[in-house]
Amino acid sequence: MQAPRFDHGARIDRLREQMARRYVDVVMLSVGSDLPYFSGYEATPLERLTMLVIPAEGDSALFVPELEAARVEPGDFDLVAWGETDDAIRLVAQFAGGSRHVAIGDHTWSTFLLGLQAELPETIWSVASTLTKPLRMRKEPAEIGLLRQAAESADRVLARVPLEIRFSGRKERDVARDFQEMTIAEGHDLAWTAIVASGPNGASPHHEPGDRVIEEGDLVVCDFGGRIGGYYSDVSRTVIVGAPTPRQTEVHELVRAANEAGRAAVAPGVPCEQIDRAARRVIEDGGYGGHFIHRTGHGIGLEVHEHPYIVEGNQLPLAPGMTFSVEPGIYLPGEFGVRIEDIVVCGDSGGEDLNQATRGLVDVS
Amino acid sequence: MQAPRFDHGARIDRLREQMARRYVDVVMLSVGSDLPYFSGYEATPLERLTMLVIPAEGDSALFVPELEAARVEPGDFDLVAWGETDDAIRLVAQFAGGSRHVAIGDHTWSTFLLGLQAELPETIWSVASTLTKPLRMRKEPAEIGLLRQAAESADRVLARVPLEIRFSGRKERDVARDFQEMTIAEGHDLAWTAIVASGPNGASPHHEPGDRVIEEGDLVVCDFGGRIGGYYSDVSRTVIVGAPTPRQTEVHELVRAANEAGRAAVAPGVPCEQIDRAARRVIEDGGYGGHFIHRTGHGIGLEVHEHPYIVEGNQLPLAPGMTFSVEPGIYLPGEFGVRIEDIVVCGDSGGEDLNQATRGLVDVS
Repeated sequence: MQAPRFDHGARIDRLREQMARRYVDVVMLSVGSDLPYFSGYEATPLERLTMLVIPAEGDSALFVPELEAARVEPGDFDLVAWGETDDAIRLVAQFAGGSRHVAIGDHTWSTFLLGLQAELPETIWSVASTLTKPLRMRKEPAEIGLLRQAAESADRVLARVPLEIRFSGRKERDVARDFQEMTIAEGHDLAWTAIVASGPNGASPHHEPGDRVIEEGDLVVCDFGGRIGGYYSDVSRTVIVGAPTPRQTEVHELVRAANEAGRAAVAPGVPCEQIDRAARRVIEDGGYGGHFIHRTGHGIGLEVHEHPYIVEGNQLPLAPGMTFSVEPGIYLPGEFGVRIEDIVVCGDSGGEDLNQATRGLVDVS
Repeated sequence: MQAPRFDHGARIDRLREQMARRYVDVVMLSVGSDLPYFSGYEATPLERLTMLVIPAEGDSALFVPELEAARVEPGDFDLVAWGETDDAIRLVAQFAGGSRHVAIGDHTWSTFLLGLQAELPETIWSVASTLTKPLRMRKEPAEIGLLRQAAESADRVLARVPLEIRFSGRKERDVARDFQEMTIAEGHDLAWTAIVASGPNGASPHHEPGDRVIEEGDLVVCDFGGRIGGYYSDVSRTVIVGAPTPRQTEVHELVRAANEAGRAAVAPGVPCEQIDRAARRVIEDGGYGGHFIHRTGHGIGLEVHEHPYIVEGNQLPLAPGMTFSVEPGIYLPGEFGVRIEDIVVCGDSGGEDLNQATRGLVDVS
């Protein structure tokens, strides 16, 4: 399928409105997803500088290493291909010379920022996300379409899990590979490294799947996803190998109720932290508050984690088009963990679930 | 296989010698490979800050998000797990308070550097690679062992190519996937996205493999590799589908001679740029100087591209233990490209080739 074409020129116009409001003279974008958002081009994360420089007025310029110039499709910018013995930092600084306030992409490497600060000592620097976040948080219909496509693909993987993935007697890392292969097979362009955290390993939320052999009676946290047309999926379910104990059932039910409460709280105008509170209260009331050791969710789009963050202290009101995860969890050191994660889009009156896969405790024995 | 254990404490001692020489008070390492080099721990490249802070004297501290703390193995540092509502930047700044000169990891995100600069306005900032490069460039025997293992694995892939990979009539992207699968099958932990650039696409050195169907008569640049125990392989060969034209043969022979000349020039004390010149002269003398549009090579180790760079202007003398690529190429827009790349280690008296695969023009029809 051909990825939908986005209107990069219109996005740059909206960026310039933000620049004017905040007195930013120039925006510089390098590795990270702001660059493809505004240009359709993705920088190779290597030592040669790629940078899109967008002045408040006049033409933008995309600086790319000469040997990558042939990869760039024409866009709303002048292409500047720099050679192996050129000083790319100096070329960018000359182009931006005289700028009082520059906003630079959040993921730009320090080596480039320090080089630019040395070349432009009078300049005030800030992060570009202040300007790009308000635009990127509210997805366009075509972006939501790709996120829906990715979520549906992940749901198809989940439907196959109890039928096709054997857990018992196998290493976490091998089960994780199955998830990645299925994620690709179900239509993703790439799959990120799945989390498969069994038994006591489930108590570490970002556990790296390893050599532990999954046993009868284990709860297994499965957190996986990938990318379609540049947009990510990210879903978690916790499965059981065999029959759950009463305690496993209790904790799973509590996390499921917290996930439900978080999703039910989604509506335009509701502050992000209220979604966190809604989910957290269920777990606190159940007596496990000290074991829900992370925020409730994160935005998702061109990045797996992006704005808005669903965390205490974030008073940003939700608005239609915002897409994010709701993923409460309970982590019991030495015992097990449970997490249930869905992607939700804020609509005109409430939340819409992009993931529909069952949230029940599925037996994979 | 268990990865060899490295002596991180001894490495930090050597780093502190560099810090003393350059009057650096604190080193801060985040995403990037300096962090695993000095701690064995790799930061998750997400929005939550992971940072190892190494003062010139006293204990180091590793700041990690609370939900990743269980992944950290004990090391020569105090572990500081910060919670979801903590301000991690402020915690790091407080720990480093009063530092006059801080060196920060080159790949650290701008958002963290700008945050730290705001917290520590009196501090002078520079890149950590000034200190870490002299250490990391000269590989320890165990590091060279892993690079050799990776190169041998890549060579086994190359030996299988003419027997097992069909080129003619297939899309570049499908051939690239074959390379990646074989790279894993031959013992790599991961494979990076292979370059498969056929016919005219070969004229773009970093071509992204796409939908072009490979035809009889095509030269195909194949550039692939992966990682074993943290260390990378990276090798290129250019193959032919069927019988080459005289021009294809001529250009391939020239690149092969340039690769040979570059490798033959390797010896301790020889400036990096001399390796570039030795390879480049062959191509210039052959009349194609304007079509060799990139440097001759790059260091390799924990990163695919690292110091030392084999480029005009780099007068750094080679020293035993340095490992790098020698990869001249000729790129003819609208026609084809040729690149031949090997990994070489500088020994006590000359270069040693880690790749041994044939450099002849192999027919894959």
